[in-house]
Parts: sequence; structure tokens; C-alpha cells
Amino acid sequence: MLHILYIIAITAEAMTAALSAGRRDMDWVGVCIIAWVTALGGGTVRNILFNHYPMSWVEHPEYLLITAGAAILAAIIASIMTKLKKLFLYLDALGLVVFTIIGCQIAQQINLPVFIIMLSGMITGCAGGVLRDVLCNDVPLLFHKEIYASASIVTGAVYLGIEYLGASSGIAIIVACVIGLALRLLSIRYKWQMPKFVYHEEWH
Amino acid sequence: MLHILYIIAITAEAMTAALSAGRRDMDWVGVCIIAWVTALGGGTVRNILFNHYPMSWVEHPEYLLITAGAAILAAIIASIMTKLKKLFLYLDALGLVVFTIIGCQIAQQINLPVFIIMLSGMITGCAGGVLRDVLCNDVPLLFHKEIYASASIVTGAVYLGIEYLGASSGIAIIVACVIGLALRLLSIRYKWQMPKFVYHEEWH
Amino acid sequence: MLHILYIIAITAEAMTAALSAGRRDMDWVGVCIIAWVTALGGGTVRNILFNHYPMSWVEHPEYLLITAGAAILAAIIASIMTKLKKLFLYLDALGLVVFTIIGCQIAQQINLPVFIIMLSGMITGCAGGVLRDVLCNDVPLLFHKEIYASASIVTGAVYLGIEYLGASSGIAIIVACVIGLALRLLSIRYKWQMPKFVYHEEWH
Repeated sequence: MLHILYIIAITAEAMTAALSAGRRDMDWVGVCIIAWVTALGGGTVRNILFNHYPMSWVEHPEYLLITAGAAILAAIIASIMTKLKKLFLYLDALGLVVFTIIGCQIAQQINLPVFIIMLSGMITGCAGGVLRDVLCNDVPLLFHKEIYASASIVTGAVYLGIEYLGASSGIAIIVACVIGLALRLLSIRYKWQMPKFVYHEEWH
Repeated sequence: MLHILYIIAITAEAMTAALSAGRRDMDWVGVCIIAWVTALGGGTVRNILFNHYPMSWVEHPEYLLITAGAAILAAIIASIMTKLKKLFLYLDALGLVVFTIIGCQIAQQINLPVFIIMLSGMITGCAGGVLRDVLCNDVPLLFHKEIYASASIVTGAVYLGIEYLGASSGIAIIVACVIGLALRLLSIRYKWQMPKFVYHEEWH
Repeated sequence: MLHILYIIAITAEAMTAALSAGRRDMDWVGVCIIAWVTALGGGTVRNILFNHYPMSWVEHPEYLLITAGAAILAAIIASIMTKLKKLFLYLDALGLVVFTIIGCQIAQQINLPVFIIMLSGMITGCAGGVLRDVLCNDVPLLFHKEIYASASIVTGAVYLGIEYLGASSGIAIIVACVIGLALRLLSIRYKWQMPKFVYHEEWH
């Protein structure tokens, strides 16, 4: 079940990533690379930081084909995607919570401390988008957009909290996904933001 | 033979990288770091992704000295390099195919699937230039320039295809290098590009 | 002793990093992430390059809490920090030499060649600031500011040189720290810079 949601999520992430690449006039190779980095980069960064090999896309090269295909499709049907903007925002939110749960589970498997498990969820959920923005030469959206990384942290905390209270892993996943999704979607709807820190003194 | 070409290639990559650093008014430390990242970064990224240690430049620290020396030389003789622009474009193309073949061979040694072997070649050939552009705060050239990553993929595919047909590794290397080089040089000469995806709707 | 200096250094790095995040109008999550990357990123990059696991912040998650707390405090008292600018420049210089020594020691433990030990010191001292600048979409300051990476290299060279001459590790650390700090602080005071390489010919 989580695996099916994962495939849906990487496909959706790859498709929206393709539009970011289009804003920078990239060619189709660039579109594919940006899609790979966005959809699979979060898990890749997590695995590098926690020395967890092999990468999922080395064991399942079909993930690379699925995301490349989805990205090129998105480039072809870009005008339709613009109309489906809301659907893709929802799928991106789904991806965020699914990636987060998977990141927490992998950190649990390798017995990391509880704070690092939550961080692993956040890295898995968010690092792909940060890499996309770095490669597109933008300041990462993550750092000044609506509740995003925070929704990932909340998802991880709820998941761990419910498991700690003795519930089965399945129930913890469902509750955490629902709460995380609700938080993210409400923050899009009502433009909730974390408090911002604005500082323009000359320092260096 | 491949090893000699490798040394020539990292030297040439380091020299052209130095000019990129010069466009950003970097000091000599910056020039050396950009040269290292460009010349040795592709293999380093590949090794991190596939958990293949130690790095070549840890086993052979002389690679760091060669590339640093070449970069500082390039900064000194920058006006001569401008006149030799074509030579360095050719050497860069040579580097692309040599790095690609080496990347494929290392992935073969650790028994990765065939699609990942080609990807390993492309990462080895291209990631150094991407890191250079990120550190120089440019959108990576790779993503919107002439046939570059594609030439790397073709080189890897030809190499694997010919080996698969039963030819010796040496013949496969030579044929793949010739075809890859020809493709890259023709694409520079005739400004061949991959189709571009341009999309400027507001999305976020 | 070195450990206490390390805690002071990561705290100071996190606080100045928060101000960089403020220049880009980041929210508090962004501030924390930039602080983590700046304070702990150098050691993390070194560990990835030399396959040295686990990360210090996985073994000591309290480092993440200390730096996040320091960063948020810095955002709150930003106006006071502006007045203490000099203090933080000194603490940043302290961080540079402390990180450098620690980076050299870890490379010594895993028996790397002498040139790589110095490079490990420089990476540990400098890579966090480079990552901060990449995430804030700046050309890394390191590459065109006063003597910075060079001070790190000198610190490492003095440390190794004195140990080689037969002195105890403690004496080597103290002398290297004093010389490295003096070099860095004098270069700030008198605006010493490495020679710059400026090159604005069109190349690509």
C-alpha cells in the first residue's frame, strides 16, 4: 500500500519537477535529470548521510524509467498540467507525507535515535526539492514557503508518537498521513506560513 | 592507455574550470577548488552514490597536485588559452568520453544493472561540470547546452552494446570513444541541441 | 578542551548562519536548516568523502538541538548580534582552526596520506560555509574573501609539521591554533587577500 503511494508520489514529483526545468529552458536531458533529482534525491541524500546502501533506484532501475517517462510526458502536456495545478499540489503533499513515513521507517530499521528518525523523515520528504532548486539556481522554496518542512516533522512526530503508545505500525502510518496531509493542504489553502526572519543589515 | 587519456582529461578539465572561476573573480584557492571539483567531482559523486571507496584522489593525491597546478597555470596563461579555445573544447570532449567509459567500467566491476552502468558513465562524465556551475552560481550548462549528457549516454550504450556482441573490452572502448567524440564534436560544430522545453507559466 | 572549543564553535557558526538565512527572508525552519548545514556540514562532507560513519550529529543529536537553539536565539536578538559583529568574526575564526584540527585528526585516525590529511582539515573547516552560500544562492564567499581556506591549510600544515618534529599532539594543537587564528585575524584586520584571478572573456 505504502509502496503504491510511493510510486504515485515519485511520478507526481517528477512531473512537477519537469515544469521547474521548463522555467529554465532546459533540454530533455535536463528535464529528466531534474525529475530524478527531485523525485529520488531525498531518499538518496538520506542514504548517503546514514550510510544505507544500495540506493532504491539501483535496486529498482524502473524507478528511473518511470520518473523520466513521467517528466517527458509532463513536458509534452504542460498546458494540461497548468489546468490540473491543484491536483498536482495535492499529489505533492501526498508525496511529502509518504516520503516522510518511509524515511522514518528506514531510520528505525537502522536503530537511529528518535530525534534522528524524525530528521530522516524530513530529509527524505524535503531534500529532493532543495536539490531541484539548487540546480535551477533558485533559493530553495522550502526555506520561505508555506508550512512544508514543518508538515513533514509533524507527520514524523505523530507516526512515532502513535507507535510509542502501542498502536500497530499500520494505524500509526494512516493517522500520521491524514494529519500531515491535512496540515499541508490547510496551509496551502489559507497560506499559513512559519514566522519569517528578515534581516538586511550588512554583515560580511 | 585509458589511464594516460584520463590524466590528459583531468588536466584539461582543470584548466577550463579555472577560467570559469576567473569569471567569478575567485582567488587562487577558489580556482584550485573549482578545478578539483570539476575534474574529479564526477567520479567522486559516482563513488558516493554507489558506495565505492576510497576515492581515486585519496589513493592518488598526485591527481590533486596535477589539477591544482594545471588550474594555476591556466590562470597565468589565460590570454593564451583564449586563443586555444578550440583545442580545449576538443580536450573537454575527450574528457567526457574517457570519464564515461571509466564510469561504466567501475559500475561493471561492482555488478550493477545495465541501465545503472550507463547512468554511472553519465554521472562520471557530467557531474563535475554540474558541481562547477552550482559553485559558480550558474544554471548548469549541461541542462541547456548542445548534446553533452546525450553524447555520454551514447558512448556508454555503444561500449556496452559492443561488449555484449562479444568483442573485447579494448575494441569496445575504442569504438565507443570514436563515436562519442564524433557526436560531441559534430554537435559543437553544427550547434546540435536536444529539443528544449520552455515553460514560463507561474506555477508556485 | 578541543571538545569544549568545538561546542563553542558550532554555536557561533549557527548564530552567524542564521543571519545569512535572514538576508534571504527564510522562515524559522529555513534558519535551523541553514544553521545545521553551516555548523555541521563541513564534518559531514568530510565523512562522506572518506567513508567515515556515523556522523557526529547522529551519535550526538544534542549538537542539532544546540545549533538550532542558537540559530533561533540569533534570529531573536539579531540587532544585538549586529553590535557584537567583531566578537562573532573572532568566534568564526576560532571555529575555522578548531574544525581544521579535528578534520586533520580524523584523517590521521583512518591513515590517510599527509596531503589528504591537510585537505580533510580544510574541508572540515570550510565546506559548511560553502554549502550555506550555495543554499542561499550566493557565490561562495570562501572563493573570493580574505585569507580563509588558506588559513585553514596553514593551520593543518603547522599542526602536522610540529607533530612530525616529535612534539606531543597537545603542543602541536596549541601552536597550530595560535598561528592559524593570528593569520585569520590579521587578514581580517588588514584585509589581506589571496591574489585574485579575474577573467571575463566569453568562453562558452
